[in-house]
Amino acid sequence: MSSLSVLPPECLLQPFPVPQRLMLGPGPSNVPARIAAAGAQPMLGHLHTETIEIMNQIKSGIQYAFQTRNRVTLAVSGPGHAAMECAIFNSLEPGESILIAVNGIWGERAAEIAERIGTDSVFTRKPGTKIYKVVFFFTHGESSTGVVHPIDGIGDLCHKYKCLFLVDSVAALGGTPIFMDEQGIDIMYTGSQKVLNAPPGTAPISFSERACQKIFNRRTKPISYFLDLNWLANYWGCDDKPVRVYHHTGPVSSFYGLRESLAILAETGLENSWKRHKEVAEYFHKGLEEMGLKLFVQDKKARLPTVTTIVAPPGYDWREITGYIMKTYNIEISGGLGPSAGMVLRVGLMGCNSSKANVDKVLEALAEALKHCHKSRV
Amino acid sequence: MSSLSVLPPECLLQPFPVPQRLMLGPGPSNVPARIAAAGAQPMLGHLHTETIEIMNQIKSGIQYAFQTRNRVTLAVSGPGHAAMECAIFNSLEPGESILIAVNGIWGERAAEIAERIGTDSVFTRKPGTKIYKVVFFFTHGESSTGVVHPIDGIGDLCHKYKCLFLVDSVAALGGTPIFMDEQGIDIMYTGSQKVLNAPPGTAPISFSERACQKIFNRRTKPISYFLDLNWLANYWGCDDKPVRVYHHTGPVSSFYGLRESLAILAETGLENSWKRHKEVAEYFHKGLEEMGLKLFVQDKKARLPTVTTIVAPPGYDWREITGYIMKTYNIEISGGLGPSAGMVLRVGLMGCNSSKANVDKVLEALAEALKHCHKSRV
Repeated sequence: MSSLSVLPPECLLQPFPVPQRLMLGPGPSNVPARIAAAGAQPMLGHLHTETIEIMNQIKSGIQYAFQTRNRVTLAVSGPGHAAMECAIFNSLEPGESILIAVNGIWGERAAEIAERIGTDSVFTRKPGTKIYKVVFFFTHGESSTGVVHPIDGIGDLCHKYKCLFLVDSVAALGGTPIFMDEQGIDIMYTGSQKVLNAPPGTAPISFSERACQKIFNRRTKPISYFLDLNWLANYWGCDDKPVRVYHHTGPVSSFYGLRESLAILAETGLENSWKRHKEVAEYFHKGLEEMGLKLFVQDKKARLPTVTTIVAPPGYDWREITGYIMKTYNIEISGGLGPSAGMVLRVGLMGCNSSKANVDKVLEALAEALKHCHKSRV
Repeated sequence: MSSLSVLPPECLLQPFPVPQRLMLGPGPSNVPARIAAAGAQPMLGHLHTETIEIMNQIKSGIQYAFQTRNRVTLAVSGPGHAAMECAIFNSLEPGESILIAVNGIWGERAAEIAERIGTDSVFTRKPGTKIYKVVFFFTHGESSTGVVHPIDGIGDLCHKYKCLFLVDSVAALGGTPIFMDEQGIDIMYTGSQKVLNAPPGTAPISFSERACQKIFNRRTKPISYFLDLNWLANYWGCDDKPVRVYHHTGPVSSFYGLRESLAILAETGLENSWKRHKEVAEYFHKGLEEMGLKLFVQDKKARLPTVTTIVAPPGYDWREITGYIMKTYNIEISGGLGPSAGMVLRVGLMGCNSSKANVDKVLEALAEALKHCHKSRV
């Protein structure tokens, strides 16, 4: 036997304690002690009776959060981007076309994913062509711009043209109303680490009967085995098969945490959650304007209550502001992303973080940052 | 605003405590309190300074566990199957060929994945053709059969034919020797939930310079954005770029747990871990034979120390045996998988579960099961 040529790394031979921080960026948000404790429960097998019961409960919780009765409702064993790929990989076959509303970074990413698998991605911002589109991608809460997009009516329009309506609600779900069934949404997904306050790593997703009709009658297999809905639907007990066949090992402890986060949402009540996010966001926006800061989204109705975009204060380097607030207050707020990079500050108030107490904290931190950070231009 | 049509599910309005169970199946294994506690630490941002430091430490820990100095070493934000797809999606372009050694279920799965992305997958069990193969897939520890495959010499042979050597060490890593650099392995991955004893949901992976040469000079983009090594290498600080760009939100708490599991391995020492797994497995095998049970793998040197396959006792229904042991002893052991389904019982002794005390428990449970379960045939 050879001897070791790479020795145990020194950095691993001492503990690395993690600091407590107020997470008011666009996510991940803080994880309440109850969810963290759930995730630390004993390990079970990915197909044990109790795990299956937990998965069934997660399914019910997602149906409630999404307001859907869709049978094919589950959590992807990965972050939001894996759910985005799951939606696109399964609903499209090579050569088919997807219409993507690009209103921020998420539409761009959807297009990037769709193009890689050999589908034709038609941006709304490009002149339209007569291609038959089978899927329309729309972002509900665009966390890069801080806009909540109206959903009503789009489902009907899509269905008139035999097109599936696919909605990304990663940054919005649980914080602002959406009704999957009533609004005719065919595929919707979210992330665990936003309003739900679970750690990142699982992503709730649901498919309508119309979506399943197309997906389960594909001519070709989806490009990914790991994200193949035929397998996932069986693993989550969403099909007619009598047993769940081993597909992959689900992130069991992450499922414990996700269940707990959905339990908190069920206890709180969706309507109460929507109301609180709205009130807290309005309280925040009022405070920002009183401080002389400008909101990036002028139309009040278009403001996403979970993630607020503030016009980067003129004369300041936004990096210095977020750095000051992190260093002095141990609070995370962030700069822009994709199309809003350099233009805005972003503050997330999601789930347990959506409280007036947190608003007061971040307003104070912002006021102090504007006092202490270098102002060069006007 | 519409009112809710789906009400909060009753099942979520009460707690769901998870039982303690001895996990002696082929994985996930038990998670030591120290790793569970690490995972329950406060949430941080996926690009915060401390998170990046933790990711750097994970990288060092994987380099130690794999015995490699590869710069492109990281953990995939998903289970082992995501790592398998990451390896295949990145190393192969459409139209290229992969040679797969099918010695159990994992080769079959690799072939399934390779075929979906339009590559030509050549099984060793089919007659060879003169196709130029760019990747050779080989499973180190085949958990379906309980065989550990010899690795020496294969790397050199692959390189002679300008082929990359890809090794799946999900079920073996940390429990039996492997030297990635010295054995000329170009791509290797494992899972977090086997010998490492972390919860499932992250998958260490590493790429040699030779593999990177091919991957970073592809003509086409890998089929998956989420698993694109160009992005992942940047997120994990494995490239020359000065900043880490947002790609996806990593499973931060799972990274805490993975770091802790690698810390335990570094403290234990790889050689001690290999030695313990070997001794405990031999102690187990001796006990099984004394009980009159037959090992599925006759050649002692070919026995995987992490997962033991036992010939399903003649006259019994294996399901009754695993069911009895689960019900009476709260111990998980499992049946076969894929090609070994119905033929074997499988017992995993991985990481913290690899102890003589656990062997004594499972031997007692097996003996009692053979006494109490129905024996119909001889």
